[in-house]
Amino acid sequence: MRILILNGANLNLQGKREPAIYGLASMDEFLTNLKNRYNSVGIDYLQSNEESVLIEQIQQAEGKYNGIIINAGAFTHTSIAIGDAIRSICTPVVEVHISNIFAREIHRRKSCISEACIGNICGFGLESYRLAVESLLSMGH
Amino acid sequence: MRILILNGANLNLQGKREPAIYGLASMDEFLTNLKNRYNSVGIDYLQSNEESVLIEQIQQAEGKYNGIIINAGAFTHTSIAIGDAIRSICTPVVEVHISNIFAREIHRRKSCISEACIGNICGFGLESYRLAVESLLSMGH
Amino acid sequence: MRILILNGANLNLQGKREPAIYGLASMDEFLTNLKNRYNSVGIDYLQSNEESVLIEQIQQAEGKYNGIIINAGAFTHTSIAIGDAIRSICTPVVEVHISNIFAREIHRRKSCISEACIGNICGFGLESYRLAVESLLSMGH
Amino acid sequence: MRILILNGANLNLQGKREPAIYGLASMDEFLTNLKNRYNSVGIDYLQSNEESVLIEQIQQAEGKYNGIIINAGAFTHTSIAIGDAIRSICTPVVEVHISNIFAREIHRRKSCISEACIGNICGFGLESYRLAVESLLSMGH
Amino acid sequence: MRILILNGANLNLQGKREPAIYGLASMDEFLTNLKNRYNSVGIDYLQSNEESVLIEQIQQAEGKYNGIIINAGAFTHTSIAIGDAIRSICTPVVEVHISNIFAREIHRRKSCISEACIGNICGFGLESYRLAVESLLSMGH
Amino acid sequence: MRILILNGANLNLQGKREPAIYGLASMDEFLTNLKNRYNSVGIDYLQSNEESVLIEQIQQAEGKYNGIIINAGAFTHTSIAIGDAIRSICTPVVEVHISNIFAREIHRRKSCISEACIGNICGFGLESYRLAVESLLSMGH
Amino acid sequence: MRILILNGANLNLQGKREPAIYGLASMDEFLTNLKNRYNSVGIDYLQSNEESVLIEQIQQAEGKYNGIIINAGAFTHTSIAIGDAIRSICTPVVEVHISNIFAREIHRRKSCISEACIGNICGFGLESYRLAVESLLSMGH
Amino acid sequence: MRILILNGANLNLQGKREPAIYGLASMDEFLTNLKNRYNSVGIDYLQSNEESVLIEQIQQAEGKYNGIIINAGAFTHTSIAIGDAIRSICTPVVEVHISNIFAREIHRRKSCISEACIGNICGFGLESYRLAVESLLSMGH
Amino acid sequence: MRILILNGANLNLQGKREPAIYGLASMDEFLTNLKNRYNSVGIDYLQSNEESVLIEQIQQAEGKYNGIIINAGAFTHTSIAIGDAIRSICTPVVEVHISNIFAREIHRRKSCISEACIGNICGFGLESYRLAVESLLSMGH
Amino acid sequence: MRILILNGANLNLQGKREPAIYGLASMDEFLTNLKNRYNSVGIDYLQSNEESVLIEQIQQAEGKYNGIIINAGAFTHTSIAIGDAIRSICTPVVEVHISNIFAREIHRRKSCISEACIGNICGFGLESYRLAVESLLSMGH
Amino acid sequence: MRILILNGANLNLQGKREPAIYGLASMDEFLTNLKNRYNSVGIDYLQSNEESVLIEQIQQAEGKYNGIIINAGAFTHTSIAIGDAIRSICTPVVEVHISNIFAREIHRRKSCISEACIGNICGFGLESYRLAVESLLSMGH
Amino acid sequence: MRILILNGANLNLQGKREPAIYGLASMDEFLTNLKNRYNSVGIDYLQSNEESVLIEQIQQAEGKYNGIIINAGAFTHTSIAIGDAIRSICTPVVEVHISNIFAREIHRRKSCISEACIGNICGFGLESYRLAVESLLSMGH
Repeated sequence: MRILILNGANLNLQGKREPAIYGLASMDEFLTNLKNRYNSVGIDYLQSNEESVLIEQIQQAEGKYNGIIINAGAFTHTSIAIGDAIRSICTPVVEVHISNIFAREIHRRKSCISEACIGNICGFGLESYRLAVESLLSMGH
Repeated sequence: MRILILNGANLNLQGKREPAIYGLASMDEFLTNLKNRYNSVGIDYLQSNEESVLIEQIQQAEGKYNGIIINAGAFTHTSIAIGDAIRSICTPVVEVHISNIFAREIHRRKSCISEACIGNICGFGLESYRLAVESLLSMGH
Repeated sequence: MRILILNGANLNLQGKREPAIYGLASMDEFLTNLKNRYNSVGIDYLQSNEESVLIEQIQQAEGKYNGIIINAGAFTHTSIAIGDAIRSICTPVVEVHISNIFAREIHRRKSCISEACIGNICGFGLESYRLAVESLLSMGH
Repeated sequence: MRILILNGANLNLQGKREPAIYGLASMDEFLTNLKNRYNSVGIDYLQSNEESVLIEQIQQAEGKYNGIIINAGAFTHTSIAIGDAIRSICTPVVEVHISNIFAREIHRRKSCISEACIGNICGFGLESYRLAVESLLSMGH
Repeated sequence: MRILILNGANLNLQGKREPAIYGLASMDEFLTNLKNRYNSVGIDYLQSNEESVLIEQIQQAEGKYNGIIINAGAFTHTSIAIGDAIRSICTPVVEVHISNIFAREIHRRKSCISEACIGNICGFGLESYRLAVESLLSMGH
Repeated sequence: MRILILNGANLNLQGKREPAIYGLASMDEFLTNLKNRYNSVGIDYLQSNEESVLIEQIQQAEGKYNGIIINAGAFTHTSIAIGDAIRSICTPVVEVHISNIFAREIHRRKSCISEACIGNICGFGLESYRLAVESLLSMGH
Repeated sequence: MRILILNGANLNLQGKREPAIYGLASMDEFLTNLKNRYNSVGIDYLQSNEESVLIEQIQQAEGKYNGIIINAGAFTHTSIAIGDAIRSICTPVVEVHISNIFAREIHRRKSCISEACIGNICGFGLESYRLAVESLLSMGH
Repeated sequence: MRILILNGANLNLQGKREPAIYGLASMDEFLTNLKNRYNSVGIDYLQSNEESVLIEQIQQAEGKYNGIIINAGAFTHTSIAIGDAIRSICTPVVEVHISNIFAREIHRRKSCISEACIGNICGFGLESYRLAVESLLSMGH
Repeated sequence: MRILILNGANLNLQGKREPAIYGLASMDEFLTNLKNRYNSVGIDYLQSNEESVLIEQIQQAEGKYNGIIINAGAFTHTSIAIGDAIRSICTPVVEVHISNIFAREIHRRKSCISEACIGNICGFGLESYRLAVESLLSMGH
Repeated sequence: MRILILNGANLNLQGKREPAIYGLASMDEFLTNLKNRYNSVGIDYLQSNEESVLIEQIQQAEGKYNGIIINAGAFTHTSIAIGDAIRSICTPVVEVHISNIFAREIHRRKSCISEACIGNICGFGLESYRLAVESLLSMGH
Repeated sequence: MRILILNGANLNLQGKREPAIYGLASMDEFLTNLKNRYNSVGIDYLQSNEESVLIEQIQQAEGKYNGIIINAGAFTHTSIAIGDAIRSICTPVVEVHISNIFAREIHRRKSCISEACIGNICGFGLESYRLAVESLLSMGH
Repeated sequence: MRILILNGANLNLQGKREPAIYGLASMDEFLTNLKNRYNSVGIDYLQSNEESVLIEQIQQAEGKYNGIIINAGAFTHTSIAIGDAIRSICTPVVEVHISNIFAREIHRRKSCISEACIGNICGFGLESYRLAVESLLSMGH
């Protein structure tokens, strides 16, 4: 089983930006732990502040990955194109968010990609990603 | 660790109603498996079609449970009172949905309780509940 | 043929409350006449001010009744859960209203259950219920 | 007792257009049966794709008919003028629809004429018209 | 100077329909008085319940009339086509209403033709038409 | 017969400001002509950029005037208080506007005072005021 | 004089939940003081998390009480049924809120029951109830 | 204890304007009674139809009064500036209304000042002011 | 191959009305050229200012024409009935507009018939019709 | 070069009210410094809580001033009349705000006067005024 | 004559993604046929999932191309920047869509670029591009 | 002191595109003058049509610059991601616009980044940038 974790805009700053909202844990450390814990799973990671990079990663994931975990960051609320990319493949995609987007500003409550994903997990900090791995693993059975 | 799973309106019909949306798996079987898998966790389950029963279970959970998993069913979209009950306790509450509520009718995309919960998990069928157990366990560490 | 007539919030006051809107005829008298007129039909009646009672009556109607006539009262405009209960069964459900809800306050013009019902009849006073019986009888042919 | 049945836009195609929505029964056959069943009632029928014809039929119905049954078709959702014609007479007018307009596109859920009518019946196929006849007969008593 | 007075939907009932709103005076009597008072002005009158008749009268008025006075009745609130007809000619058009449309139902407060007219006069009963004649006469100077 | 003409915000600049919209004619000249033409009518005029002055003039007009003509300028679109003042007296009030407010910016299409007035006249330049005088005279008969 | 104080959803937690919003005073202590201060008034108190209990208490209050004081809690913002119950009786009902609902979340600013009540008092903590008693006493004179 | 009662637009007409809504009692008589009943309280009264007068009275009340009772009349629904004045002082301000503003036109249901006040009392006629005095007295303890 | 070109309200004025928007070319000349260019295609043309004429032409086109090109003029934005007529036949219908309706007033951007048509072409002047002929020809292959 | 600085509602309290939002610096001190720094510029200052005073100052500024700097305070969000006054003169007007109005309550994000001004500067505290002086000076070159 | 065809987000998957909506034909084959058919026209093609690439291609097209055909994909509904790029050049731009965007989800019915284009063609599959070529050719005459 | 000026979409065309809106001055010339005038300040400039380039420049500015001046062009109205980047750093960011965005199309009046910036300056042409430099300099004191 191979899983691709895709992070969008500003998530390269995880652990550094607005820690009251996003926490202090860095993505690197988290990924190391995650890979250790799920060492039978191939986990690839990519972050980009560029919408097109995410679109193309999603397009190319089909056949290469059994599942995608995506936190599109602010693109979540504005990118119909990422939603369309997800619709264009058969690979299951799980949407995650570090913070509880429903307890924040009104414009963060609308997601352009939820509708195209299998399911959504938000509000658990970086743990949201691990739960998404769990969800993909259980689909694999 | 003790966890309370609360199900709201019409979830007593799980496995029987609208299977194209909610699946064919029954709650009973799922709960048996869940308890076996997490046998060190005390898992209580309650379903009610009555809003007030859910409110009161939430109010009384404080001190008795380390976490609540709630799928309020249709009350999700209409009950500010359940949201207030969640706000009135310190026990973490995780919102779950069997279906991906964001890929359904417009009135199902608004939740009155998301804001009051720790996090939200939806779209994974009954697996959503298991992921919620995982999330509560990881908070417990 | 068996029919269940379900009345929701405040309809226990029919004949007594706001007669300019709802008329002076009592539900009891009306039901007696209705049963006499349609004496080959088994007509059961239940009123409740409790949303959950209506939900459960609907859930349990399947197999027991050939049709349900529901006037959910004010729940009409707020209860997605009753609509879900109707969706969960195959028994046809007819929505009725005593007054013409489209000629009243703006919030009474939206029904949360119309979409789930076979059809809707409103504005004819208690006669609305009799027309609903007629509609169910004609389906039975 | 004399009743006028008025059909609006595109209802001359009943039985031929979009049968999944409107059914396969033709208006002609239905009317023959209706007149046979209610042979003591004088039932006139008129269909027009022209809003003004409907307006003028309504205006002239006063004194000639004891009741009007109107299915204005798509004019239902756009014609304030038909609503005004109904308001201009004392003859009771019953609004009917073949399909359940509340279970269709959003723009079909708004009626410009409901407010001016005595009551509304929708969703029972052509049976909606017969129920309307019943409603007018019972008013006649 | 020649003036065309155009009346739309249901205005053939003036004096008879909803007198609390539109008054008891008939259009005929009013027109007789108007022509007497402004006997140097050629005043033509046409009422139609048909939108297309109004459109074509407006189209053909150019060159034949120095001004049009239009009370489109309920078409006021729905007919973009009448507004376009007014835009298509150079003859000044004055919009009138018998009742104060701003003190009535919300859907009567929007006019599709105001924007295309020179000016608007409403709320003075049939006197609104005479004021419109006055306004056209003063433009003629 | 005595008439009070009330002008609101920025109408002291009439003839000088935005002539493409409001024209080049001054209020002074217009009033001189108006008084000459209607020399049997007592016409008083007051302009104020202060909402309270308008409110108080309206309050005090009862008994002193047979009618008020008001062009509240921009207060038209914002002052519920002027509308309330008009509602507080029995003297008929006619709303006028120099420009056609329905052919301008969206926020000018809503009037807070139309509902409280007898009728409305707009779009005829200063002639709108003369038509209002005519309307009040005809009410006086 | 007899007064019924009705409290809705989650108000059994008064003094314990979200004290920054609702204060630390308990309902019990407050009621003891209130009864002492107004010892000539018969004051009954009932709290329920169940909408139907409130509806039925209101229905049954007629004849038994001279006035009702209701704080429907979160039902305030969602229950048309409670509003209808209030409309169904002649006993005056006063709406109260502990917090200033207009200074909180947007969904708390809309009340489904205000329109049916005599008056509204909010923002004074538990003192809101005492003011409501005062208001009912003064009506009694 | 010193209290300032501030009345806004058109409230100088209390007892005379729209008595079906505002009642027949005059403010003068009411104030005489109020001062007699609360003779240990210094009660000052000011009414103005001028928004700026209210703003400045509020600004200057700090230090001079222990509380302000404001009925801003129609300014309630339009004046953000009065709300800002209230926010600029520490003196508690209570908003009152004679009529139940929630049972009237839609534009009267929005208040620009509620959010800035301690609490709100409406619908009790002039008694609303007395309840506000009570509320301020109880704060003073 | 036979094609029907249908023009709606005010399009009989093409070439004469508002040339800055619609151009100076007349429909007659354009049709002559079109028929010459596509001389193997039978092209019929009908314009009407009457909604019902368009509805009936569409209804009757089935079997007689291989395609319809419709520019409903202002009916585009208001006629659900024309949309329903299009839905009632299997003949492909192409919607055209002379001007770019998306670069004009807001109410022209909504089309009631787009959804029922195969495709839409707008903004190319009368050339829009020729492109529609091309589109129908290519479907014919 | 002569510049008029106009301050609206509640800005007489600058330095004293809500310092977390508006800062502690007083307008007087700021103006002294400003005049010193730009001693070749004639700077006049006027604050008023009265909308009409601002309107009239703007009207009279033409010819006397080369530019106006306006902070209308809360009138910013409600006064179309001030916007009209600005439109009525040719003198350039710069809108300033002390706080960043886009980071505050939703109703503060709409300005009725921005559209009529040359440009807008907000969020820099009292420095906003100095930047406006700079902008007017650079226009003067 | 030189024409640039620009394709936006996810259109590199044409023929492969969601064939029920977009068809099975590949862009490559279509372009080969198109170039053959219009062999006197220089047709360049570029697809990008990057908004900036489209912006820059449009900016640089001026002088190099006689026309642009753009299908911006999902950027259609979100990119004001592409619309601005189109506005910044004089080269005519034609908007095309493969599917009928007006018969799909609500968010696909709004285009951010229609207003800036000469015209729009949608719903004809890849044929939409050929019609656009035709439209540009006819402009060239 | 070091300042970064960031320009977004289409601003590489400044001086060439839509000069009636954006003026004829080129960015290059303006920057040369700016650097001369503020020669003690290190001013860097970067323009990109790529949202991600702006995001990354903002992220990397912390520590390198004392302030950022951003004109995000059309991204202003759509990019929540740029707003998030601004929120992620402590360096003050000033939003500028060449044109008065409040006097243009409705969709240009909403900014996704204003809320995250210190302040906003718009409408002064390229002078807006110089005023932003001034604002940053004054913060530096």
